[in-house]
Amino acid sequence: MFPFFGSRQGKHAVLEVIRNIAGIVQVQRFDREMTILGLDSAASIVRCLLISRASKTQIALRLAQFAQFKAARLIKMRALIDTFDLVEQSSIHLPNMSSCVVRTR
Amino acid sequence: MFPFFGSRQGKHAVLEVIRNIAGIVQVQRFDREMTILGLDSAASIVRCLLISRASKTQIALRLAQFAQFKAARLIKMRALIDTFDLVEQSSIHLPNMSSCVVRTR
Repeated sequence: MFPFFGSRQGKHAVLEVIRNIAGIVQVQRFDREMTILGLDSAASIVRCLLISRASKTQIALRLAQFAQFKAARLIKMRALIDTFDLVEQSSIHLPNMSSCVVRTR
Repeated sequence: MFPFFGSRQGKHAVLEVIRNIAGIVQVQRFDREMTILGLDSAASIVRCLLISRASKTQIALRLAQFAQFKAARLIKMRALIDTFDLVEQSSIHLPNMSSCVVRTR
Protein backbone atom coordinates (compact mmCIF):
# COMPACT_ATOMS: atom_id res chain seq x y z
CA MET A 1 0.00 0.00 0.00
CA PHE A 2 2.92 2.41 0.57
CA PRO A 3 5.52 1.75 -2.14
CA PHE A 4 6.53 5.40 -2.19
CA PHE A 5 8.67 5.41 0.95
CA GLY A 6 12.39 5.73 0.53
CA SER A 7 14.76 8.09 -1.23
CA ARG A 8 14.35 9.41 -4.78
CA GLN A 9 16.78 11.50 -6.77
CA GLY A 10 16.18 13.41 -9.99
CA LYS A 11 13.20 15.32 -11.29
CA HIS A 12 11.56 12.37 -13.08
CA ALA A 13 11.84 10.02 -10.10
CA VAL A 14 10.37 12.68 -7.82
CA LEU A 15 7.45 13.43 -10.14
CA GLU A 16 6.84 9.68 -10.50
CA VAL A 17 6.63 9.17 -6.72
CA ILE A 18 4.25 12.11 -6.40
CA ARG A 19 2.04 10.53 -9.09
CA ASN A 20 2.21 7.23 -7.16
CA ILE A 21 1.08 8.87 -3.95
CA ALA A 22 -1.81 10.59 -5.73
CA GLY A 23 -2.85 7.25 -7.20
CA ILE A 24 -2.91 5.49 -3.83
CA VAL A 25 -4.35 8.07 -1.45
CA GLN A 26 -6.43 11.19 -1.73
CA VAL A 27 -5.91 14.12 0.64
CA GLN A 28 -9.17 14.96 2.35
CA ARG A 29 -7.90 17.46 4.89
CA PHE A 30 -4.64 19.18 5.57
CA ASP A 31 -4.02 21.27 8.72
CA ARG A 32 -0.73 23.01 9.41
CA GLU A 33 0.32 22.75 13.07
CA MET A 34 3.47 24.79 12.77
CA THR A 35 5.26 26.34 9.80
CA ILE A 36 8.72 27.84 9.63
CA LEU A 37 9.82 29.96 6.72
CA GLY A 38 13.47 30.52 5.91
CA LEU A 39 14.91 32.64 3.08
CA ASP A 40 14.87 29.83 0.51
CA SER A 41 13.33 27.04 2.55
CA ALA A 42 10.26 26.05 4.52
CA ALA A 43 9.27 23.39 7.05
CA SER A 44 5.88 22.37 8.33
CA ILE A 45 4.30 19.89 10.69
CA VAL A 46 0.94 19.00 9.22
CA ARG A 47 -1.98 16.79 10.17
CA CYS A 48 -3.35 15.01 7.11
CA LEU A 49 -6.55 13.11 6.69
CA LEU A 50 -6.14 10.78 3.73
CA ILE A 51 -8.46 8.31 2.06
CA SER A 52 -7.14 5.11 0.55
CA ARG A 53 -8.42 4.96 -3.02
CA ALA A 54 -8.51 1.14 -2.89
CA SER A 55 -10.25 0.50 0.43
CA LYS A 56 -11.94 3.90 0.92
CA THR A 57 -10.70 3.90 4.52
CA GLN A 58 -9.52 7.06 6.25
CA ILE A 59 -5.90 7.41 7.37
CA ALA A 60 -4.95 10.20 9.78
CA LEU A 61 -1.28 11.06 10.11
CA ARG A 62 1.16 13.71 11.23
CA LEU A 63 3.85 14.58 8.76
CA ALA A 64 6.92 16.80 8.95
CA GLN A 65 7.94 18.23 5.60
CA PHE A 66 11.06 20.21 4.74
CA ALA A 67 11.58 21.92 1.39
CA GLN A 68 14.48 23.85 -0.08
CA PHE A 69 14.24 26.15 -3.08
CA LYS A 70 16.75 27.75 -5.43
CA ALA A 71 15.84 30.31 -8.09
CA ALA A 72 12.13 29.71 -7.38
CA ARG A 73 12.44 25.96 -7.97
CA LEU A 74 12.17 23.11 -5.51
CA ILE A 75 15.55 21.42 -5.21
CA LYS A 76 15.16 19.25 -2.11
CA MET A 77 12.28 17.90 -0.07
CA ARG A 78 12.34 15.67 2.97
CA ALA A 79 9.40 14.21 4.80
CA LEU A 80 9.12 12.28 8.03
CA ILE A 81 6.01 10.29 8.89
CA ASP A 82 5.21 8.31 11.97
CA THR A 83 4.84 4.95 10.26
CA PHE A 84 3.91 3.07 13.46
CA ASP A 85 0.76 5.14 13.57
CA LEU A 86 0.24 4.32 9.90
CA VAL A 87 0.71 0.59 10.47
CA GLU A 88 -1.77 0.59 13.34
CA GLN A 89 -4.39 2.18 11.09
CA SER A 90 -3.64 0.03 8.07
CA SER A 91 -3.28 -3.27 9.98
CA ILE A 92 -0.56 -4.42 7.64
CA HIS A 93 3.14 -5.06 8.08
CA LEU A 94 5.46 -2.53 6.51
CA PRO A 95 9.05 -3.73 6.51
CA ASN A 96 11.61 -1.15 7.61
CA MET A 97 10.33 1.92 5.86
CA SER A 98 10.88 5.07 7.72
CA SER A 99 10.61 8.18 5.68
CA CYS A 100 10.68 9.76 2.31
CA VAL A 101 13.56 11.79 0.94
CA VAL A 102 13.34 13.32 -2.48
CA ARG A 103 15.82 15.40 -4.39
CA THR A 104 14.79 16.97 -7.64
CA ARG A 105 18.39 17.05 -8.81
CA MET B 1 10.93 2.37 27.77
CA PHE B 2 9.47 5.51 26.17
CA PRO B 3 7.14 7.15 28.69
CA PHE B 4 7.99 10.59 27.39
CA PHE B 5 5.83 10.55 24.28
CA GLY B 6 2.75 12.70 24.24
CA SER B 7 1.97 16.32 24.88
CA ARG B 8 3.27 18.43 27.78
CA GLN B 9 2.31 21.93 28.72
CA GLY B 10 4.01 24.30 31.13
CA LYS B 11 7.66 24.91 31.95
CA HIS B 12 7.88 22.34 34.76
CA ALA B 13 6.23 19.54 32.75
CA VAL B 14 8.56 20.23 29.85
CA LEU B 15 11.69 20.25 32.02
CA GLU B 16 10.49 17.05 33.68
CA VAL B 17 10.07 15.24 30.36
CA ILE B 18 13.53 16.39 29.25
CA ARG B 19 14.96 14.97 32.49
CA ASN B 20 13.08 11.71 31.82
CA ILE B 21 14.54 11.40 28.35
CA ALA B 22 18.06 12.04 29.67
CA GLY B 23 17.52 9.33 32.29
CA ILE B 24 16.43 6.73 29.75
CA VAL B 25 18.69 7.32 26.77
CA GLN B 26 22.01 8.95 26.13
CA VAL B 27 22.72 10.77 22.87
CA GLN B 28 25.81 9.31 21.25
CA ARG B 29 25.65 11.06 17.90
CA PHE B 30 23.55 13.80 16.41
CA ASP B 31 23.71 14.73 12.70
CA ARG B 32 21.61 17.48 11.18
CA GLU B 33 20.23 16.52 7.77
CA MET B 34 18.48 19.78 7.06
CA THR B 35 17.91 22.91 9.16
CA ILE B 36 15.59 25.82 8.50
CA LEU B 37 15.92 29.06 10.40
CA GLY B 38 13.05 31.53 10.65
CA LEU B 39 13.05 34.88 12.46
CA ASP B 40 11.98 33.45 15.82
CA SER B 41 11.83 29.76 15.00
CA ALA B 42 13.87 26.83 13.76
CA ALA B 43 13.24 23.35 12.38
CA SER B 44 15.61 20.48 11.84
CA ILE B 45 15.59 16.91 10.62
CA VAL B 46 18.26 15.09 12.58
CA ARG B 47 19.66 11.59 12.71
CA CYS B 48 20.30 10.51 16.29
CA LEU B 49 22.24 7.58 17.59
CA LEU B 50 21.06 6.90 21.13
CA ILE B 51 22.08 4.37 23.75
CA SER B 52 19.54 2.91 26.13
CA ARG B 53 20.93 3.39 29.64
CA ALA B 54 19.18 0.22 30.85
CA SER B 55 20.08 -2.26 28.10
CA LYS B 56 23.12 -0.47 26.61
CA THR B 57 21.70 -1.12 23.15
CA GLN B 58 21.99 1.43 20.35
CA ILE B 59 18.90 3.05 18.86
CA ALA B 60 19.16 4.95 15.58
CA LEU B 61 16.33 7.28 14.65
CA ARG B 62 15.36 10.22 12.49
CA LEU B 63 13.65 13.04 14.26
CA ALA B 64 12.00 16.24 13.05
CA GLN B 65 12.10 19.02 15.61
CA PHE B 66 10.36 22.41 15.47
CA ALA B 67 11.04 25.17 17.99
CA GLN B 68 9.57 28.61 18.45
CA PHE B 69 11.12 31.40 20.51
CA LYS B 70 9.91 34.67 21.94
CA ALA B 71 12.17 37.23 23.63
CA ALA B 72 15.05 34.73 23.48
CA ARG B 73 13.05 32.05 25.30
CA LEU B 74 11.71 28.75 23.99
CA ILE B 75 7.91 28.90 23.99
CA LYS B 76 6.96 25.87 21.87
CA MET B 77 8.66 22.72 20.66
CA ARG B 78 7.27 19.92 18.58
CA ALA B 79 8.99 16.72 17.60
CA LEU B 80 8.00 13.93 15.26
CA ILE B 81 9.71 10.55 15.40
CA ASP B 82 9.17 7.50 13.26
CA THR B 83 8.07 5.18 16.05
CA PHE B 84 7.70 2.12 13.78
CA ASP B 85 11.43 2.27 13.25
CA LEU B 86 11.83 2.61 17.00
CA VAL B 87 9.57 -0.38 17.71
CA GLU B 88 11.49 -2.54 15.25
CA GLN B 89 14.73 -1.73 17.05
CA SER B 90 13.32 -2.10 20.53
CA SER B 91 11.24 -5.24 19.87
CA ILE B 92 8.55 -4.04 22.22
CA HIS B 93 4.98 -2.96 21.70
CA LEU B 94 4.31 0.74 22.06
CA PRO B 95 0.57 1.47 22.16
CA ASN B 96 -0.54 4.40 20.05
CA MET B 97 2.21 6.88 20.74
CA SER B 98 3.06 9.05 17.87
CA SER B 99 4.94 12.13 18.74
CA CYS B 100 5.97 14.61 21.34
CA VAL B 101 4.52 18.08 21.68
CA VAL B 102 5.76 20.37 24.39
CA ARG B 103 4.75 23.88 25.27
CA THR B 104 6.71 25.78 27.84
CA ARG B 105 3.73 27.96 28.63
